[in-house]
Amino acid sequence: MGRILCGVDIGGTKFAIGLVDEKGTIIDKIYSRDHVGKNEEDLVTLVTENIREIMARNRLQETDLPGLGIGFAGHIRYRDGVVITTSNLKGFKNYPLREAFQTRFNTPVKLDNDANAQAFGEYKFGAGQGVDDMVFLTVSTGIGAGIIINKKLYRGTTGTAGEFGHTIVEPKSDLVCTCGNRGCLMACASGLALPSLYKKKLKEGKKSILPLPPDYDLSKIDGRILKKGLDIGDPVSREIILECGYYMGVGIYNIFQALNPPLIVLGGGLTNWGDLYLEKIQSTFYELARDMIFDPVEISVSEIHGDAGVIGAAALTLE
Amino acid sequence: MGRILCGVDIGGTKFAIGLVDEKGTIIDKIYSRDHVGKNEEDLVTLVTENIREIMARNRLQETDLPGLGIGFAGHIRYRDGVVITTSNLKGFKNYPLREAFQTRFNTPVKLDNDANAQAFGEYKFGAGQGVDDMVFLTVSTGIGAGIIINKKLYRGTTGTAGEFGHTIVEPKSDLVCTCGNRGCLMACASGLALPSLYKKKLKEGKKSILPLPPDYDLSKIDGRILKKGLDIGDPVSREIILECGYYMGVGIYNIFQALNPPLIVLGGGLTNWGDLYLEKIQSTFYELARDMIFDPVEISVSEIHGDAGVIGAAALTLE
Repeated sequence: MGRILCGVDIGGTKFAIGLVDEKGTIIDKIYSRDHVGKNEEDLVTLVTENIREIMARNRLQETDLPGLGIGFAGHIRYRDGVVITTSNLKGFKNYPLREAFQTRFNTPVKLDNDANAQAFGEYKFGAGQGVDDMVFLTVSTGIGAGIIINKKLYRGTTGTAGEFGHTIVEPKSDLVCTCGNRGCLMACASGLALPSLYKKKLKEGKKSILPLPPDYDLSKIDGRILKKGLDIGDPVSREIILECGYYMGVGIYNIFQALNPPLIVLGGGLTNWGDLYLEKIQSTFYELARDMIFDPVEISVSEIHGDAGVIGAAALTLE
Repeated sequence: MGRILCGVDIGGTKFAIGLVDEKGTIIDKIYSRDHVGKNEEDLVTLVTENIREIMARNRLQETDLPGLGIGFAGHIRYRDGVVITTSNLKGFKNYPLREAFQTRFNTPVKLDNDANAQAFGEYKFGAGQGVDDMVFLTVSTGIGAGIIINKKLYRGTTGTAGEFGHTIVEPKSDLVCTCGNRGCLMACASGLALPSLYKKKLKEGKKSILPLPPDYDLSKIDGRILKKGLDIGDPVSREIILECGYYMGVGIYNIFQALNPPLIVLGGGLTNWGDLYLEKIQSTFYELARDMIFDPVEISVSEIHGDAGVIGAAALTLE
């Protein structure tokens, strides 16, 4: 058996710890929601206890690991290992999270934001295997992304490079992002946009055949509901999915012009919309790029099955 | 005296050859337009003769040079040294230009597109001195750009990375780029856009006080004319300059989110519009980026004086 990797994914509603083999398969995993509401120090202590537990029950020593990889849902200043800010957990303003774990473990701790971790996991274990450069985008409630250049994550000055979700694709859009700006990719094409898009279509007089209760709170419209709509032939769901696909195609075209990568990989919940969505993304991209493509550019779907967050965090120890 | 560098800038209407010292100052230069209309082989021969002439009159041997740097206005597949295509000179479809020069010179030939060369010149000799990462944009008739990552040009798979001019910032715009797409940055904010913007403002009933002859061909409106307009208080010129500045601000914000560089340098003719323009770019950028900036991001103006194309081409030999 090869080396075992350990990855920790700390999100707003749950954290997960996984042991992963060198092919990226999860061997053992712990899930918990007990960190919510805890202060920084107590959260680190709780996660540490759970790491020790999963290692003990798999008879692993810290020194067996090449490192401990941590993915965190927030802005990270990578070079310092500091969480600058997060909207997913209370506290964590300029909190030295890497150091907090490093003092507790006798193996190098790597800390990065969860989208970068997933990007690196996809590069190591998924659709990115064998390429030197790629861009990964995860599209669910929001849009996260990571850039691989020359086999490594490219992070920029602060560590926040790859925030394609906040690039603006429709400056005069009615859709406003959580960042406060109009018409960034996240505002136009992520889960965030779906309630507004649905309400807008109804307002325009479009008829939906989604079987929603009469007093249904339309702000709860999400990707899963629209997938059901698509499956039952709801024209409004279909139109929204195509619209999101269009903007993703524009966003990916912009990434192509900016970085000229050979591969762009899409992950996250909205990829479950399937072929209609993916083909709209691809057709939009290829229509825009046309005769400006001189070497193959592949747009493909994540091949990480299971917990991409944990697997990505574990992959960070191989960077 | 330190080493002498030799750079060649081959454009659609002129070519220039320069000897440049290690501080980026031009020591001697040859200009010519005699290449226009020549086939590839004859063009290379002509440029070669001129290189030999400038070297001879400065008593330089080929082996005195660290290399020969060539900037070419077109799409270049960097790894092969091949011009894929250019809209500036006839011919040059998949032409192995680097090889054509390499067989004639006993010093390593470097070939890249002119915007990449300028970016590297700016990094070596201009506003980018001392940083490891930066993005350079040159805004004139079109928009060219280059990305420096970790002290080197980042070129992507083909070599066409950094084409921020073709990233789309207003998909439903009336303005169409030479690439055929609507609303890319070049369509909205380069010299190309100025005649359309001017005509549009007149159509909207705006009154210009530009002293143009009655039968003036408005398709000749360019950056220089609008600068005169600005200087005499023409409200239409001012509005267009602010609109271009706004879109450049959006484009630079998108670059910031994508690459998180510490420095973005602007060059090219439209920067001569001066403070009104530059301040609009900066204010648009900082309004959009607001609380998403965690480390300083500087937007500054090119410090290369003189022929940025030749100096950039010469700088390529130091990469």
